[in-house]
Amino acid sequence: MSTVDLSITAPAIDVEHEVHARHGYSANKDAYLRRLKRIEGQVRGIARMVEDDKYCIDILTQVAAVTKALHAVSLGLVEEHIGHCVVGAASEPDPGARAEQIDAKVKEATDAIGRLLR
Amino acid sequence: MSTVDLSITAPAIDVEHEVHARHGYSANKDAYLRRLKRIEGQVRGIARMVEDDKYCIDILTQVAAVTKALHAVSLGLVEEHIGHCVVGAASEPDPGARAEQIDAKVKEATDAIGRLLR
Amino acid sequence: MSTVDLSITAPAIDVEHEVHARHGYSANKDAYLRRLKRIEGQVRGIARMVEDDKYCIDILTQVAAVTKALHAVSLGLVEEHIGHCVVGAASEPDPGARAEQIDAKVKEATDAIGRLLR
Amino acid sequence: MSTVDLSITAPAIDVEHEVHARHGYSANKDAYLRRLKRIEGQVRGIARMVEDDKYCIDILTQVAAVTKALHAVSLGLVEEHIGHCVVGAASEPDPGARAEQIDAKVKEATDAIGRLLR
Repeated sequence: MSTVDLSITAPAIDVEHEVHARHGYSANKDAYLRRLKRIEGQVRGIARMVEDDKYCIDILTQVAAVTKALHAVSLGLVEEHIGHCVVGAASEPDPGARAEQIDAKVKEATDAIGRLLR
Repeated sequence: MSTVDLSITAPAIDVEHEVHARHGYSANKDAYLRRLKRIEGQVRGIARMVEDDKYCIDILTQVAAVTKALHAVSLGLVEEHIGHCVVGAASEPDPGARAEQIDAKVKEATDAIGRLLR
Repeated sequence: MSTVDLSITAPAIDVEHEVHARHGYSANKDAYLRRLKRIEGQVRGIARMVEDDKYCIDILTQVAAVTKALHAVSLGLVEEHIGHCVVGAASEPDPGARAEQIDAKVKEATDAIGRLLR
Repeated sequence: MSTVDLSITAPAIDVEHEVHARHGYSANKDAYLRRLKRIEGQVRGIARMVEDDKYCIDILTQVAAVTKALHAVSLGLVEEHIGHCVVGAASEPDPGARAEQIDAKVKEATDAIGRLLR
C-alpha cells in the first residue's frame, strides 16, 4: 500500500510520489515532526504516571489529550490529502484517467476518515 | 485532582490511595507499561514515516491504529476505575459518606468517558 | 439479553429488574424521552434537508449535532448504569455472589462504552 | 455557509449549486432518505425501550448502533462533498479563483470531518 513498495516496481508512481512529496504535507513536515515528538513525550508521560501509581482518572485525562492531539494530526493530513492528492488527480489532463484517479483518491480519503471515526 | 495532591492534606485519602494502588490498574501495571511502550514506538514510527515522505494515507492508517490502541488502554483504565474505585466507594460503611463517595466516583468516571467520546 | 426475556424464566431477576426500574434511568425517564423525541425530530430535519437538496456541509453539521446529542444520552445511561447496576451489585450481601455480579456489571459497562468509542 | 445564501449574491455559484444538486449526494437522494427514515425509526425504538424500562445496557447498544448508522451517512456525504464540491472547484478555469475555491471547499470538508471526530 505504501508509495515506496509501489515505487520499487513502478517508477512512474515514483514520479507521482515526488510530486506528492513536494506538494503534500511535506511543506509542513517540520511542524508535523514537532507535534509527533510532543505526542511521543505525552505517551512517555502517561507511562510515568502508571509507573508512579497515579490516579486512574488523571491518567485517563492524559490519554484523552493524546487522542485529541492525534485527531488534530489526522485532520491536518486529511486536509492536505484532499487539497493535494485529490485536487492533483482532478488536474490530470486525460478525462478518462482523471475520473478514475479522482475516484481512487476520494475513496482512499473516505476510507481513511472512516478508520478515524471507528 | 490527583490522589497524591489530596494525600498531602488528607492522610485518610492516602490510605484509600494505597488500597487503590494495590487493587486498581496496579495489578496490571506491567501490562499497561508494555502497551504504552509499544504505543510510544508506534508514534515514533509515524514520525519516521513523515520524515521519509511516506504517503499520507498510509500515515493516517497508522495514526488510526495508535488512536485505537489508546482507546483500548482507556477502556482498561475505565474498567478498573469502575471495578475498584466505584465499588470501593460502595463498600464504605457509613451510609452518608458512601452515597457521597459513590456519586463523586461515578461522576469522575462519566466525565472521563465523556472526554474520551469527544 | 433484555431483562424482560430473563424475567420470564427467572423471577428472581424480575425483582432485580424492579429495583433497577425504580433506581436506574427510570427516575429521569421523562427527560430521556424528551431528549429522544428531540433527536428523532433532528433526524427528520436532516431528511428534509436532503429532500430539499441542501448543501452537504450543512447536512453534515446537523448529523454531527445529532451524534453529539446521542453521545450525551449514552453518557447519561452509562452514569446511571454505573451508579445503580454496578453499585447495586456491590451491595449484594453474599461475598462470592457479590464479586461475580460486580465483575459482570463492570464488564457490561465497559463493553458498552467500548461500543460507543468505536 | 449554505449554497443558497451564496447564490443570492453570486448567480455563478447558483449554477455550481445546480451542478452540485445534480451530481452530489442527490444522485443517491432516495438511498439517503431511506437510511435516514430507518435511523428515525431506530431512535423511536430507543424511546420505546426507555418507555418500557428496558435494561440500560441494551439501550446503550441501540444508541451505539444509531451512532454508527449516522457515521455511515456522514462518510457518504463527505465522500460526495470531496468528489463533487472539491473536484468541482478544481475544474474552475480561472487559476486564481480556482485556488481560492479549492481552499474554501477543502477547509469546509476538513472542518466538517473535525466536527464528526469530536
